[in-house]
Amino acid sequence: MRIRNIQNAQEMIDQNPYVISNPQEFLGQYQKIFNNNNPIHLEIGMGKGDFLINMALQNPNLNFIGLEKYSSIVARALKKLAKYQIPNLKIIVTDALNLKDIFDHEITTIYLNFSDPWPKKRHAKRRLTSLTFLPIYDQIFNKKCCIIQKTDNEGLFESSIVSLSNYGYIIKEISLDLANTSIPNVETEYEKKFKSQGIKIKYLRVEKNINQ
Amino acid sequence: MRIRNIQNAQEMIDQNPYVISNPQEFLGQYQKIFNNNNPIHLEIGMGKGDFLINMALQNPNLNFIGLEKYSSIVARALKKLAKYQIPNLKIIVTDALNLKDIFDHEITTIYLNFSDPWPKKRHAKRRLTSLTFLPIYDQIFNKKCCIIQKTDNEGLFESSIVSLSNYGYIIKEISLDLANTSIPNVETEYEKKFKSQGIKIKYLRVEKNINQ
Repeated sequence: MRIRNIQNAQEMIDQNPYVISNPQEFLGQYQKIFNNNNPIHLEIGMGKGDFLINMALQNPNLNFIGLEKYSSIVARALKKLAKYQIPNLKIIVTDALNLKDIFDHEITTIYLNFSDPWPKKRHAKRRLTSLTFLPIYDQIFNKKCCIIQKTDNEGLFESSIVSLSNYGYIIKEISLDLANTSIPNVETEYEKKFKSQGIKIKYLRVEKNINQ
Repeated sequence: MRIRNIQNAQEMIDQNPYVISNPQEFLGQYQKIFNNNNPIHLEIGMGKGDFLINMALQNPNLNFIGLEKYSSIVARALKKLAKYQIPNLKIIVTDALNLKDIFDHEITTIYLNFSDPWPKKRHAKRRLTSLTFLPIYDQIFNKKCCIIQKTDNEGLFESSIVSLSNYGYIIKEISLDLANTSIPNVETEYEKKFKSQGIKIKYLRVEKNINQ
């Protein structure tokens, strides 16, 4: 994503009620944040927030946390969120590498929507389905691990399938053209753009038991 | 495949040295057929034989058996084979449902090239990667199970990935556009046609240990 700088992004983030500014302090006790024990779904790389906002609005009995490392992008999401009062949505501004310090077996589903494909082989370890991240996800998943990925990028899709399968994940659902399926879908900003350009969206839902 | 009738197809097949006419009698002892203990690779649905012939020519230290249920198609392959003397290639004319009566843990690799996609849901059990066939393959695989699939059909490809993954197969290699990879490839008749039409070939290599 091309990141346009937003003036005062940090100021917008500080003190915003949607942002968890001290997530390490809630390790193992996110029910305090949401005031309930509902399952927590995590989107890594939430971007401008369309997916997360609509998922949270449509699923009031689930909690949603969006992770995003760029303050300027979070600021855009917060602008959208200013219109809403969504108690089951929170945002954490950090890198996915820090996840294991933030959650302790508390997440039920991870969404990876249009993640950076890192197409060069020497950058393969930076892909969010690489062996850099899968052990981290083991630390944050509660019981069953479920990852749902959407991408327009064939290379990332292929790489994810091999990496996840070799790590013990079972492929429960897959589509090479999500728009032509009956799989329930909430669109991201990227997805709308890709769809209008006729680019097919690839979809993957995988599961693994935590003890495997 | 549209099947044109070939007169005398059965006559061509009977007594042809490439055809194993009594495969049940060799259950557990195919080394007698090939006069060696080299690994045996099996193509289910060999069609007119281009893939099998070229694989056998390129890999003299492997044995290849082609399965094909239609006599008329086998007759076409035999016409091509008349030009060659290929000791490591044999053909069996039967349905894949009969495989467990033919091999006893003797196959190292199964190729599924452009298999019938059976796109209708009520026909899903007829797909060669469905639960109808995977337990049969367990009976014929020796130690490690390896299946290599190529197809132009997205529905069959998606269905295969989910079915194989849920059955314990690990996805070792995958491509949504085989022509744009460095994966070694021997083309089938179909593949040449699809390629000339700009249709992308999907490729899958999966493995499972026999005791899983």
